[in-house]
Amino acid sequence: MPAEIKGLNEECGVFGIFGAPDASQLTYYGLHTLQHRGQEGAGIVSSDGEKLYQHRDRGLLATVFADPAELKRLVGDAAIGHVRYGTSGHNSIANVQPFLFRFHDGDVALAHNGNLTNAVTLRRQLEDEGAVFQSDSDTEILIHLIRQHIKEGFIPALKKSLNQVHGGFAYLLLQRDRLIAALDPNGIRPLCIGQLANGAYVVASETCALDIINAKFVRDVQPGELIIIDQNGLHIDHYTTDTQLAICSMEYIYFARPDSIIHGVTVHNARKEMGRRLAQEHPVDADIVIGVPNSSLSAASGYAEAIGLPYEMGLIKSQYVARTFIQPTQALRERGVHLKLSAVRGVVSGKRVIVVDDSIVRGTTSKQIVKMLRDAGATEVHLLIASPPFKFPCFYGIDVSTRAELLAAHYSVEEMRQWIGADSLAFLSVESLIKAINVPDAGEAPSGGLTVAYFNGDYPTPLYDYEAGYLKSLNAQEQRERKERARQ
Amino acid sequence: MPAEIKGLNEECGVFGIFGAPDASQLTYYGLHTLQHRGQEGAGIVSSDGEKLYQHRDRGLLATVFADPAELKRLVGDAAIGHVRYGTSGHNSIANVQPFLFRFHDGDVALAHNGNLTNAVTLRRQLEDEGAVFQSDSDTEILIHLIRQHIKEGFIPALKKSLNQVHGGFAYLLLQRDRLIAALDPNGIRPLCIGQLANGAYVVASETCALDIINAKFVRDVQPGELIIIDQNGLHIDHYTTDTQLAICSMEYIYFARPDSIIHGVTVHNARKEMGRRLAQEHPVDADIVIGVPNSSLSAASGYAEAIGLPYEMGLIKSQYVARTFIQPTQALRERGVHLKLSAVRGVVSGKRVIVVDDSIVRGTTSKQIVKMLRDAGATEVHLLIASPPFKFPCFYGIDVSTRAELLAAHYSVEEMRQWIGADSLAFLSVESLIKAINVPDAGEAPSGGLTVAYFNGDYPTPLYDYEAGYLKSLNAQEQRERKERARQ
Amino acid sequence: MPAEIKGLNEECGVFGIFGAPDASQLTYYGLHTLQHRGQEGAGIVSSDGEKLYQHRDRGLLATVFADPAELKRLVGDAAIGHVRYGTSGHNSIANVQPFLFRFHDGDVALAHNGNLTNAVTLRRQLEDEGAVFQSDSDTEILIHLIRQHIKEGFIPALKKSLNQVHGGFAYLLLQRDRLIAALDPNGIRPLCIGQLANGAYVVASETCALDIINAKFVRDVQPGELIIIDQNGLHIDHYTTDTQLAICSMEYIYFARPDSIIHGVTVHNARKEMGRRLAQEHPVDADIVIGVPNSSLSAASGYAEAIGLPYEMGLIKSQYVARTFIQPTQALRERGVHLKLSAVRGVVSGKRVIVVDDSIVRGTTSKQIVKMLRDAGATEVHLLIASPPFKFPCFYGIDVSTRAELLAAHYSVEEMRQWIGADSLAFLSVESLIKAINVPDAGEAPSGGLTVAYFNGDYPTPLYDYEAGYLKSLNAQEQRERKERARQ
Amino acid sequence: MPAEIKGLNEECGVFGIFGAPDASQLTYYGLHTLQHRGQEGAGIVSSDGEKLYQHRDRGLLATVFADPAELKRLVGDAAIGHVRYGTSGHNSIANVQPFLFRFHDGDVALAHNGNLTNAVTLRRQLEDEGAVFQSDSDTEILIHLIRQHIKEGFIPALKKSLNQVHGGFAYLLLQRDRLIAALDPNGIRPLCIGQLANGAYVVASETCALDIINAKFVRDVQPGELIIIDQNGLHIDHYTTDTQLAICSMEYIYFARPDSIIHGVTVHNARKEMGRRLAQEHPVDADIVIGVPNSSLSAASGYAEAIGLPYEMGLIKSQYVARTFIQPTQALRERGVHLKLSAVRGVVSGKRVIVVDDSIVRGTTSKQIVKMLRDAGATEVHLLIASPPFKFPCFYGIDVSTRAELLAAHYSVEEMRQWIGADSLAFLSVESLIKAINVPDAGEAPSGGLTVAYFNGDYPTPLYDYEAGYLKSLNAQEQRERKERARQ
Repeated sequence: MPAEIKGLNEECGVFGIFGAPDASQLTYYGLHTLQHRGQEGAGIVSSDGEKLYQHRDRGLLATVFADPAELKRLVGDAAIGHVRYGTSGHNSIANVQPFLFRFHDGDVALAHNGNLTNAVTLRRQLEDEGAVFQSDSDTEILIHLIRQHIKEGFIPALKKSLNQVHGGFAYLLLQRDRLIAALDPNGIRPLCIGQLANGAYVVASETCALDIINAKFVRDVQPGELIIIDQNGLHIDHYTTDTQLAICSMEYIYFARPDSIIHGVTVHNARKEMGRRLAQEHPVDADIVIGVPNSSLSAASGYAEAIGLPYEMGLIKSQYVARTFIQPTQALRERGVHLKLSAVRGVVSGKRVIVVDDSIVRGTTSKQIVKMLRDAGATEVHLLIASPPFKFPCFYGIDVSTRAELLAAHYSVEEMRQWIGADSLAFLSVESLIKAINVPDAGEAPSGGLTVAYFNGDYPTPLYDYEAGYLKSLNAQEQRERKERARQ
Repeated sequence: MPAEIKGLNEECGVFGIFGAPDASQLTYYGLHTLQHRGQEGAGIVSSDGEKLYQHRDRGLLATVFADPAELKRLVGDAAIGHVRYGTSGHNSIANVQPFLFRFHDGDVALAHNGNLTNAVTLRRQLEDEGAVFQSDSDTEILIHLIRQHIKEGFIPALKKSLNQVHGGFAYLLLQRDRLIAALDPNGIRPLCIGQLANGAYVVASETCALDIINAKFVRDVQPGELIIIDQNGLHIDHYTTDTQLAICSMEYIYFARPDSIIHGVTVHNARKEMGRRLAQEHPVDADIVIGVPNSSLSAASGYAEAIGLPYEMGLIKSQYVARTFIQPTQALRERGVHLKLSAVRGVVSGKRVIVVDDSIVRGTTSKQIVKMLRDAGATEVHLLIASPPFKFPCFYGIDVSTRAELLAAHYSVEEMRQWIGADSLAFLSVESLIKAINVPDAGEAPSGGLTVAYFNGDYPTPLYDYEAGYLKSLNAQEQRERKERARQ
Repeated sequence: MPAEIKGLNEECGVFGIFGAPDASQLTYYGLHTLQHRGQEGAGIVSSDGEKLYQHRDRGLLATVFADPAELKRLVGDAAIGHVRYGTSGHNSIANVQPFLFRFHDGDVALAHNGNLTNAVTLRRQLEDEGAVFQSDSDTEILIHLIRQHIKEGFIPALKKSLNQVHGGFAYLLLQRDRLIAALDPNGIRPLCIGQLANGAYVVASETCALDIINAKFVRDVQPGELIIIDQNGLHIDHYTTDTQLAICSMEYIYFARPDSIIHGVTVHNARKEMGRRLAQEHPVDADIVIGVPNSSLSAASGYAEAIGLPYEMGLIKSQYVARTFIQPTQALRERGVHLKLSAVRGVVSGKRVIVVDDSIVRGTTSKQIVKMLRDAGATEVHLLIASPPFKFPCFYGIDVSTRAELLAAHYSVEEMRQWIGADSLAFLSVESLIKAINVPDAGEAPSGGLTVAYFNGDYPTPLYDYEAGYLKSLNAQEQRERKERARQ
Repeated sequence: MPAEIKGLNEECGVFGIFGAPDASQLTYYGLHTLQHRGQEGAGIVSSDGEKLYQHRDRGLLATVFADPAELKRLVGDAAIGHVRYGTSGHNSIANVQPFLFRFHDGDVALAHNGNLTNAVTLRRQLEDEGAVFQSDSDTEILIHLIRQHIKEGFIPALKKSLNQVHGGFAYLLLQRDRLIAALDPNGIRPLCIGQLANGAYVVASETCALDIINAKFVRDVQPGELIIIDQNGLHIDHYTTDTQLAICSMEYIYFARPDSIIHGVTVHNARKEMGRRLAQEHPVDADIVIGVPNSSLSAASGYAEAIGLPYEMGLIKSQYVARTFIQPTQALRERGVHLKLSAVRGVVSGKRVIVVDDSIVRGTTSKQIVKMLRDAGATEVHLLIASPPFKFPCFYGIDVSTRAELLAAHYSVEEMRQWIGADSLAFLSVESLIKAINVPDAGEAPSGGLTVAYFNGDYPTPLYDYEAGYLKSLNAQEQRERKERARQ
């Protein structure tokens, strides 16, 4: 689970299906392939055309549905599901999605991937007008907004509400007789549409969730779109036309599964290309190239291929690290006890090693890896990062919303190298990252249709509730640049 | 977990330590790295010099010790531990090791990796003489034998008993004041010795368990040896000198962790070399080389390197397949729902693909993989196996003791290819396998110090209780060869 | 658990405390004594003066707090708790109380015993105005009403809201810095105030919850009162003066613990007196008197004392009937397998037995008891009920809201006797019931300050949402009487 | 659960059945009624005529069989079951019965109620001869003895073995094709035989287990008998004729269910008579008589009846005290927080109260009860015990095997009264106890066929392994008496 190594956590994965018998079972398999996007909670709501049925709980999908009877109870031809990452403080079952709201005029279920930038403000306004929230989650805001406008009808109320929320969001809504999907105006979170052989439509965070149930890819949901699926089929609408693609680059670098295809780009291929370009930008003289399993293996093999060095398995990752695992004490940790990663002595001993990783957040894992490799006999350890320095927080759904924990926000590359203890340290440039991913749909969109704000502070949206705190976290130089940019 | 894909299951992993504070915690970490050797049960027995303390249960190590208090109860400077694979029928807690036997003249704990070939006979004899067994396991036989000779003293009784049991075995025994290890006369199961900085000795199935606790490798336990570790240090004795190294080749091919070093050979390196030699024996004209994760990735990268084709990630394996996972129905399976492995469409589509796997047991997974790759757009699928055809059962601790389930026992390579649906199918030769592993300690030992009976029927020991059934399973030709060999 | 025998279920018990260290632990003990009022769910919310902390789940109190760490997390000097009975359909965790609502202007926790008669109407109105409900429970309505009026301040908003809800209710609310209790205008549900030696105030459904924590009884909460407890002590206010005591008579007959004192009457004493008066109204010639354990033992001993016959233990109740207990099949049941109650052969054999029970709902248990006693050798079985025939449903918090299941609603006493199979059957009169309880505070209140609607259809409040359905369930004669009464 | 109040714990209950479909389900119900005899573990072994099937675990019966599938797996027409009390130290699953031993010549299951006095000696001898024990329990000894003689055939070996074990025991054994029961030569533990309408035989610790499944009582098993039930019916044999009835008097006083009939005496009736005789021996001038629920209610009502005072419910016992319950801290306990028992203020306030209890072990509960009653307003509290002072330990299966914890072993009645704080304290005499029970089968047996050693030190058997320790625990006077008695 990346959470423990990285401090980088995606907030969610969503899946929806309409028109398939065993809808909840298919949703279960879809969520299974999205489990990497969130391991703290999981849930499914199904509809049999009359009523909505729900099961959700904390824990991994397989834990939440450990009793197969729970899944069988979720009858019907339509369903939405959700896997969730959540920080420990708010990890109550009340925050596990999909949320199911029951009204005398019809139930609504809601699942959400992303993060709103004006949630605090909206929630305060709503509460002052009488709203009673049941969770800490941003997600719930949408339903309160909808209910405020409900007399205009559900779809008009939804459109109006989608124009009131800001930030990154991919929403799925399930009603008795239809499935609805909506994406933020920058398409920051991925969302795609597929179709089963029987004609049923599927909507999911990543294409790997289509593949597992043998659904054909139809198209990516585009920024600002509102997709409505009902017995008449798929209807593509939009709630705004003021859109600009800026999909989160971290999806390609780290979050998404290597087999997913996002806006036409296979994630493994993008990573391999990042590795190749990294080799062009930062060729190093060494004996072997290794990757940090599992997310960096593609980039490492690209680097090895481009530079012409053997690609080896120099680090291995345990398949059995569970949440309940008894962690080593500090004393043991200092003696080198690492449960997740092990260096392969017989591979690295006596070798000059290039280790490719996808990113550095706090840097603690990098430091451990370098030490581990040296302890296993590596004569040199060169750390090459297949993305640019991670300097600025994410406000769109990655669990890094303060700069305090970002190593690159506070230190130069040389300072980082020294602290980590590598013989050399280098990062991919933002330009190469953009070229490596090379989003075909990007058109004229800035940054090649990507959000690369984590590397250059250039956020595609206003920050609203976060603006003040963010500004305070910047140093003088960065503040000047920020203002400069705002002026343009 | 290999069990589900392969039908190949190792029976156990063992770990012991003497002379270290936190002995049980170190044992826990050691077992953690050996979890791939058995996922059905786990246990630890510790000694504080006066008493022995025990905890064991069904399930993964992290489940068994989900409550950290259980580990804290296991006080003392010495401990042994065990992870277990067991067929479902006998998966009662009574069979989870280490076994702890309490006697008025001193307690004994016992852990075992391997399988005896004369267990049925011994057990029947013992029962007729008054013995009451508490488990179905072979392991318990040793303690009954010891107690029959106990008036001669524990070590003499143990030596006598070790000469009565036949087959493959690596035993660990813990008494109040010493740790004992013993290996069968052919050294079929791996067992190695390490040492901590403080002088404490460690014995483990694989060196990866030494690495995690930062223990230095000392030596492999040799066939017929009896290792006694107590407050006076390490004492190397033997219970027989009629020995001949014949370590299980499947340890290198499939079971052991890639970072383990067995009799001087790093497992990853052996696998990579198997891949290279496979490329020499069976070069195929194609676009890319992919491996079946995780056990075949080393061999696949070796093949790619030798043949000069790109090594790609064409299959990915879910990290989240749990025992409790809800399995697809047959109908869904036929529609292509696979929970463990997914083909990477963006990698294989339009490509002629070489897929390298480590072995074929029943062949069902191979068949699924080929179909999966074709569904994802591969234009050709060539299946190359980095070991010889698996034709004969194992009686020394791998869970394949009948020939019925072995595809290669019943079909020619061409028949297998057709059934699997690959464009071509080829296996590594036994000779190349032996050369690829190249055990340095082998000396004049036949088959290069390896047991390769699974491929050629040439077992290093008599089969005792299994002989009759085995003979019946052979076809006429094989029976003739078997007799021929026996005559020599 | 009465649920299984009776089909009579109380909906809740509440407990609150302000000003005591270990508030949540004391709440836990208080709830423990109220467990008979609800076994489906339990929860506690505490306040440390700054924040509110919550834990709640389905199941018995001891299950919900099986991990003592959960209770320790609930820090602070104030707390409210709740035990809940719920019908299976709505037994989701979302309905387990206390509810905790978080607002930017301060959190509020809410616990409720009772049932509203205008809940459906209120909820529909609120939803149409934008409200989003999170549970199926009536309880949540109050908080939505409060938030609609919140700009007037919390207490004024609460008072206004309490005038909008109708039916039976005892509410506890906890804010950061105060504990609030409110009782319906008829005082249908019991609620009392106590005080610890250190001055801390306690509010609870029954006095047994005061006794267990050694709190002194202060007074019963009176109809229409609003009790506010904060750092300045206890403040008694009211939200309406249009009140009339009509406490639920079933609390005395069946629900409340025998040691509780409600409006000055010890429950055991009231029951014993019911037994005595039953003996006066229906003396029977027999050998022994027995009670149905546990709720009818007091009445049985009163009957025996008054009539001068030996009081014996002729039925015993298992202490070990758990929710998870495997129930006998119908076949076994017919063969007489009863898990809860057993007849004591050595006591009843050859005897003419008077068995005293507190009430008859569906009559199935009575029928079983009579058969059981005859099978054990009783020569005669006389069934005497220490309350009047239960003919009309309860809309104030007892789980009998349809007449369909009430035996006495459809049959005469003689018809019931025949169906049950007793030698004789008799009930206490309504007049004697009222005299036996003899509420000292009753003053001029009709029915002696009691709700006896279950026996005579004379409800102390309008029925609102239930009116139409109830009228339909009445036969012609009853409808006429109902209208007659309404006219008065 | 008596364990927590009393420090008196029965070690077991056993149940067996042969010849009934659903044998394991009937065993489950039988064990349900015997749950009061042991709450630490439960298990059932069934036979379908070919194989034996087993399930057992720690915890209450309903917990052990929480998954109904476990019970369904136990197919066949014969079964034995066991409920177990065990001290915490040895509460491992290995000690939960029935034990199931598998041999090549046929499996044997074994369940045991009682305690052997020569277990340590026998176990040591057996171990020196090669035996390997799997549990700490005495029970296992029998099977090792049988296997030592197995060449003589099973029944002869069993008879020989039963003559080697000493103490109190009721054994049930299940083989593929028969059910065997055996009782010690003094019949210290109760065991009875019943029959179902279909002819199937049942053997159980108490008759309440016959009643629940509608089995007719046939007879009590007599001392020294060996009962064999197979397809030919019931065969009564014996392994010794040197017998003398001395059934444990505590079964009547405290352990057995009030509805059980042991050697012709209904337990409730015996207790009521103890109460009556207590009133004759110790009449007290007071206002009301109350009992300590549940075990003392019969005696209390007998006392009240004899003395002509009202019998009231002055103490009530919570039905919801679970094992997992969070216990009050010492501080809270001193403030009077008691979870199990509550005084009924409205009953005892202002009254002179006679409280009848069945026995005093450590006296701590008695002290609490007296305080509780005074706190609730009792003006006088007279404690009357319906059995003699408990001075000497039990070696036959009650969990009191040292004198240290027995209040009456160290203090005079007046000293006890002062420490407990009662206004008066009196005990029933041994003579009256014997007369109150009045075992019809007793014949010329000393002490009326009862073991009353707990009160007078007169044990019906030699103490073997316990003799030395017991003698040391006696004071000079008691040692003299002991020797005197031994001489006779």
